[in-house]
Amino acid sequence: MSQTQGGPKRPPSSLKPPYNALRWNQRSFAVLDQRELPLKKRYLELEDITSACQAIRTLAVRGAPLIGVTAALAVAHAARKGATQQELVRGIKKLAATRPTAVNLFVALDRMKAVVENRDSRDEIVAEALNIWKEEKDYSLAMAEHGQKLIRKGMRVGTYCNTGALAAPGIGTALGVIIKAHLAGKGIHVIVSETRPLLQGARLTAWELSQWKIPYTLVTESALASVVGELDAILVGADRIAANGDTANKIGTYGLAILARHFKVPFWVVAPSSSVDLSLKDGAEIPIERRSPDEVRTFGSCRTAPRDASVANPAFDVTPARLISGIITEKGVLSAPYAKSLRR
Amino acid sequence: MSQTQGGPKRPPSSLKPPYNALRWNQRSFAVLDQRELPLKKRYLELEDITSACQAIRTLAVRGAPLIGVTAALAVAHAARKGATQQELVRGIKKLAATRPTAVNLFVALDRMKAVVENRDSRDEIVAEALNIWKEEKDYSLAMAEHGQKLIRKGMRVGTYCNTGALAAPGIGTALGVIIKAHLAGKGIHVIVSETRPLLQGARLTAWELSQWKIPYTLVTESALASVVGELDAILVGADRIAANGDTANKIGTYGLAILARHFKVPFWVVAPSSSVDLSLKDGAEIPIERRSPDEVRTFGSCRTAPRDASVANPAFDVTPARLISGIITEKGVLSAPYAKSLRR
Repeated sequence: MSQTQGGPKRPPSSLKPPYNALRWNQRSFAVLDQRELPLKKRYLELEDITSACQAIRTLAVRGAPLIGVTAALAVAHAARKGATQQELVRGIKKLAATRPTAVNLFVALDRMKAVVENRDSRDEIVAEALNIWKEEKDYSLAMAEHGQKLIRKGMRVGTYCNTGALAAPGIGTALGVIIKAHLAGKGIHVIVSETRPLLQGARLTAWELSQWKIPYTLVTESALASVVGELDAILVGADRIAANGDTANKIGTYGLAILARHFKVPFWVVAPSSSVDLSLKDGAEIPIERRSPDEVRTFGSCRTAPRDASVANPAFDVTPARLISGIITEKGVLSAPYAKSLRR
Repeated sequence: MSQTQGGPKRPPSSLKPPYNALRWNQRSFAVLDQRELPLKKRYLELEDITSACQAIRTLAVRGAPLIGVTAALAVAHAARKGATQQELVRGIKKLAATRPTAVNLFVALDRMKAVVENRDSRDEIVAEALNIWKEEKDYSLAMAEHGQKLIRKGMRVGTYCNTGALAAPGIGTALGVIIKAHLAGKGIHVIVSETRPLLQGARLTAWELSQWKIPYTLVTESALASVVGELDAILVGADRIAANGDTANKIGTYGLAILARHFKVPFWVVAPSSSVDLSLKDGAEIPIERRSPDEVRTFGSCRTAPRDASVANPAFDVTPARLISGIITEKGVLSAPYAKSLRR
């Protein structure tokens, strides 16, 4: 565990993040425990699939592309530690039951299931997980390159939740675009929304931006209507994109998209193809996770509402495709109609 | 101090709230410390004007009509304890410097200043403060009566921040309408937004609704876009209404009004005439209080962002008149154009 204040001594100049969300070596597999950021930078060993499930369910590790990769690596780690084929198949099933909305988890696990059921060697199982990881890293670099072309000098850019290297391998999705634009010297300023209830914007995005030395201003969701009108663009990630472009993302994204439309600010979704689910006709078919009322009634050890308050706590919402200016994937910038452009 | 869980044994059936925001008797003046709710129900003695300033500035007592009354009573309390005219004039100046946005504070203090400068007796000074208090109580009952006519049986009603008896003498402004509709047996359900950064919705409105036994669901601002479409009406308060109807209210109100417009949900403002400032042409002239960044960086003892995070923390926003379906004052339900209806 190390102190997280202040960040690195010199601003990073390459696309390698000054922190690692995942730690994988010959013998062990660990994730940076995102529940503890920005107060503590502590790694959590994922000894087996059960601990990986726990880490994903409790959001120690999160972000649609990152949980896909984490699940794949957890299967690979179990395989190299000697788990049987049957144990691995059971483990894949348990991992798939952790969180319902992000499709990347299922895409990654389907690929792991194929190599496991094919009775491939342990080395081949590990290789497939490392492939998935590598692909997602490459995707994030490609998205950043496509996306940064949309960012002009001195722009004020809004973002939501966390979509950096703590959410996707490499440098992230929406935040990856922002980082790339910053490194290209575009002198941007970022508006970060804190993202209640779990504050991924305040805790993670503000922390990542400070690590990269990118200027930002943190606001509550309640202040968004007061600042969105001054923005030049908004960039968000995605947990699942239906065939028509409707996009599930962290709760609050839909409201931000409505504000963007009201103030005529371009609203871009940045996500790899592993977040696209062509099997779903539209957003109404995307399963939305509902999480514990206590996430709203409390923060950390602080209670914020009556103990027995009745609460609705959906973890995601669906932004209709018509509110989205474009979808940036590793393939390029896709425009409406998404039913066509997403299939290409 | 008493436990706040559970509320009163029987649901209140009259318009008398089962809790008092202010405690005034022959010798002392105290306010219910709203910073501690819903965890603790503790009264804070306001011994002098300095402690009243501190209570208003730190939001121990809040709500536009209530801070006006609190300031008036603080002046009266100082007068009956023997303060000189000069001390009272200085005290009024200090009270006026506590918070800039709600106009009720200045309206009440102007009235107190008039009786003080008129060298009225202590009894007359006290009587004027009690008049202001009584008028605001009557206003809230009148607003509730006018407003509840807009509420039909079984409606789902949204509200924001806190506008009950903790915000205005009597039963409140927007929440007063909701309470009155509930007591009239309309079987309404309330959606309460938690209202970051200081959570007046989660801490105060949820608590008040539970005291009145009114069914409600608490959501974060991030979840509003997912629920506003299901609402039949939204009722909010006001801190200052300009001559054209533009309305300053708790930060987040503007965003909620934009959502209401997007989903075609009626959006009503409920405020007494003491919140109307005909001297201001429009909302651009309303001074907006900016509060400490630490309100966003922390909650209670919990830090929620990097210690040095750059933050914007406006405490209010201005909802343009064109997004407001009507303004409910003690005089009735006012419609656009407000430049005319507010002057009547």
